[in-house]
Amino acid sequence: MMPVQLQCPLVAVACVFMCCLFGTLSSPDPRVREALIELEASMQTGGQMVLTDAEQRLDALLFEMKQEEISRGDFPPAVHFFSAKRLIQRSPVFSLLQKMPKGGALHVHDFSMVDVEWLVKNVTYRPHCYMCSTDEPSFRFIFSSQWPKPLPRCSPWVLLENLRSKMVNATDLDNSIRGNLTLFTDQDPEVAFPSQDVVWDRFEQAFRAVWGLVTYAPVFRDYYYQGLTQFYTDNVMYLELRALLPEVYELDGSTHDRAWTLKTYQDITTQFVSKHPDFFGARIIITNQRRANRSAIAQAVEEAMKLKKDFPDFMAGFDLVGREDRGKPLWYFRDALSLPAEKGVTLPYFFHAGETDLEGTEVDQNLLDALLLNTSRIGHGFALVRHPVAKDLSRKKGVAVEVCPISNQVLKLVKDLRNHPAAALMLENHPVVISSDDPAMFGASGLSYDFYEAFVGFGGIKSHIGSLKQLAINSIRYSSLSPRQQKEALVLWQKRWNTFVTESEFLKTN
Amino acid sequence: MMPVQLQCPLVAVACVFMCCLFGTLSSPDPRVREALIELEASMQTGGQMVLTDAEQRLDALLFEMKQEEISRGDFPPAVHFFSAKRLIQRSPVFSLLQKMPKGGALHVHDFSMVDVEWLVKNVTYRPHCYMCSTDEPSFRFIFSSQWPKPLPRCSPWVLLENLRSKMVNATDLDNSIRGNLTLFTDQDPEVAFPSQDVVWDRFEQAFRAVWGLVTYAPVFRDYYYQGLTQFYTDNVMYLELRALLPEVYELDGSTHDRAWTLKTYQDITTQFVSKHPDFFGARIIITNQRRANRSAIAQAVEEAMKLKKDFPDFMAGFDLVGREDRGKPLWYFRDALSLPAEKGVTLPYFFHAGETDLEGTEVDQNLLDALLLNTSRIGHGFALVRHPVAKDLSRKKGVAVEVCPISNQVLKLVKDLRNHPAAALMLENHPVVISSDDPAMFGASGLSYDFYEAFVGFGGIKSHIGSLKQLAINSIRYSSLSPRQQKEALVLWQKRWNTFVTESEFLKTN
Ligand SMILES: [Zn+2]
Ligand SMILES: [Zn+2]
Repeated sequence: MMPVQLQCPLVAVACVFMCCLFGTLSSPDPRVREALIELEASMQTGGQMVLTDAEQRLDALLFEMKQEEISRGDFPPAVHFFSAKRLIQRSPVFSLLQKMPKGGALHVHDFSMVDVEWLVKNVTYRPHCYMCSTDEPSFRFIFSSQWPKPLPRCSPWVLLENLRSKMVNATDLDNSIRGNLTLFTDQDPEVAFPSQDVVWDRFEQAFRAVWGLVTYAPVFRDYYYQGLTQFYTDNVMYLELRALLPEVYELDGSTHDRAWTLKTYQDITTQFVSKHPDFFGARIIITNQRRANRSAIAQAVEEAMKLKKDFPDFMAGFDLVGREDRGKPLWYFRDALSLPAEKGVTLPYFFHAGETDLEGTEVDQNLLDALLLNTSRIGHGFALVRHPVAKDLSRKKGVAVEVCPISNQVLKLVKDLRNHPAAALMLENHPVVISSDDPAMFGASGLSYDFYEAFVGFGGIKSHIGSLKQLAINSIRYSSLSPRQQKEALVLWQKRWNTFVTESEFLKTN
Repeated sequence: MMPVQLQCPLVAVACVFMCCLFGTLSSPDPRVREALIELEASMQTGGQMVLTDAEQRLDALLFEMKQEEISRGDFPPAVHFFSAKRLIQRSPVFSLLQKMPKGGALHVHDFSMVDVEWLVKNVTYRPHCYMCSTDEPSFRFIFSSQWPKPLPRCSPWVLLENLRSKMVNATDLDNSIRGNLTLFTDQDPEVAFPSQDVVWDRFEQAFRAVWGLVTYAPVFRDYYYQGLTQFYTDNVMYLELRALLPEVYELDGSTHDRAWTLKTYQDITTQFVSKHPDFFGARIIITNQRRANRSAIAQAVEEAMKLKKDFPDFMAGFDLVGREDRGKPLWYFRDALSLPAEKGVTLPYFFHAGETDLEGTEVDQNLLDALLLNTSRIGHGFALVRHPVAKDLSRKKGVAVEVCPISNQVLKLVKDLRNHPAAALMLENHPVVISSDDPAMFGASGLSYDFYEAFVGFGGIKSHIGSLKQLAINSIRYSSLSPRQQKEALVLWQKRWNTFVTESEFLKTN
């Protein structure tokens, strides 16, 4: 499934070409210049895509839109997403990207799929929902048929139904809850999150707050269905979800095991697909916290091997999650992570690696180690351009980088997204896919905001309809789907793509 | 003079190596891992440098210092230089870098060599110095034997001698003058300079303020001598100065032509070298504003060819300056810039190119066009990683990139210097030199601050004494000096380097 990599030979040709010409010309030949500009343009992601007439017309429209966007004062990719969001929402490029069939979302986490509004207005309004407040400050939630046992370092539980019934208007309470379930804020993000430590701390607090809501069985099911709906509405047709597979609980406090949770994901996926036949499906990448100890990870790998055997089609593989700079490096877990290969069992890896701006630390070896451990893709790979050997291996082995622009900006790896290292990667057609990591936490949704940042921010005026097409195709090519499934998915995508191109053209002539 | 480029074959070897091993091993082989880590380390700038025992001991000391630096809270390269300066001054790595013989400074502009304190306390205290204030607000200065004619859009002239004699204490006035001669400020730089437009506007205002002071013949001479002194004191042994060659004026209002100005630079250089035999010298790159029109540039090129003939050893070549995004692209001037080649006259180019974060604009073609116009080096090349063909040509032709980290940060191309594209370039030993552009404008001086940002910021824990050695050697190898002169300069540098290594060792054992 590895796409043909044409860049190297092209550069070689260019060099021979140039070496012959340089020094012999008295002034630069416009034809040579034109050829080199075209060569460079052809090297980018989608640069060699052959476009239909209709696609070319849409591209001309896109080019105009983008020119206008770039000439305006506030260039959204240069601005923190929390401030840029409103600008992006007004962008005609963005509304086109929303309509565009984007293929698959390959890097999304289980409990940040659904916008927070739904959690506040739907979930916390359900009966039996208790809340307490910690001194971080943050909230914790639980659904329970009887008054729950007190939580250490949390205020006494209040039943939200009771609390709200005493209020004239619950707006302030709802705002306060909302603010604790996401990082997104109207405040100046530089003031609210002055450092990586602060933003990661708040990020983890928000996940803890969400936890009690979404691990309640009825909510768990609805949340996932709602998540699929939101991605589907954003014209995403396939999902690979990184899931912690928590013990899901019932109102009486009883819990289900992880196989139940995986089975539930599978059932709901099937149910969703049956209602939305143009949605291709979803698969689960089981994740574990990288701050765990060796024996916990060994156990998790053993369990993942078993689940992979029991859910061979639905489970895609295994990954470690949590703040890379604070967790243990992959190499620390090498014995556990080598178990499948040693036992001859297939357990594909999809490691987060290189989500760091520290250079030369032990964690900074994760990129190379992920590749040595035969990872199928690289989550983030923000540091890849600083690792020429790992970069070369990733390219040659066709190990795609899952680029999540908004995540990297909000978690303070980069400020101006034009400086995101994936800009350089895409300009040389490194295998990449665009994803959204934790859209709800960042105030985004689906894939469109991240597509916008990549298309306008990384690509500037150079990226075009071919880039978008390639990114969508990449998301299927580099998915964990079998070759046969990929073919099917591509047929489905192509059909939707053709409709999109035709309808966007119609948009223009009106 | 092009250094042997070993990276490509090494990567190829690595790939063959890996391709044989991948898939056949059940778990990653620590020896393979070690080999790949070493391979990657060897690919960086200075990665193949053979170190003496003394250098290795110094490297161990440096490594310790850097570890400590990185583990502290505020990592200076991640912070705006105006706030980071104080942190850097306290850094033991920085004080070592100050002592290090850094070779040549190849990208420095004529009127930003000397710290502003000297302009305020020495120059504006000289007799006959008049000042007026514009409504930007900014100041203008002139030295004159009689009361100068009023300047449009400026207040009536005041004689600073008179003004200061009426004051009990001139501190406020001096502070106000100082603030107008530099961008450096104690204010929050994000607030003072919210956008590239604002910072460039202030930058240009400051140059206009400095102009009247430094183009007065006696100051002009002293300024340049003082500039050489400051670079020399910072252990820089050679300078290539980009100079506008203004019409320098005398107290009676008479002016000198550009040949006089160039001659003066040459005389003072000779004088300085005779007093400092371990200073190798300086050469001039004549610069013109890129916002000029075609005929002005054609005329400037003609004049530069003539000056190159008259000052064959002292004049290095020609360049265009000013904000790239607002100026005309190189290609616009292609006829003028092709004149030397057409006439068979040698006029080396040292073009600023790629000092932009806009992608796909006409200006963004400057990198490729600079190479097509046979540039000897690239000034800034910030956008080079977004131009794979230009990048490849720059590498293959040995056209070094003059990287000026603090300049790019202050002029708002990048916030966290770990994300500076030159980090990736240095990790694959792309030909680079480190320079300081306009140190006085940025509150820096000499080269050490920029070396610090590059060494600690770009390199993280990975860069080492070999990187520093390579950067110093690069600054001679990629200079405009003849091969014979380079050899001499390298001998001189090596002698100073050996002393530095020995003395730093002494530092340790104490
Ligand atoms: Zn993630
Ligand atoms: Zn410059």
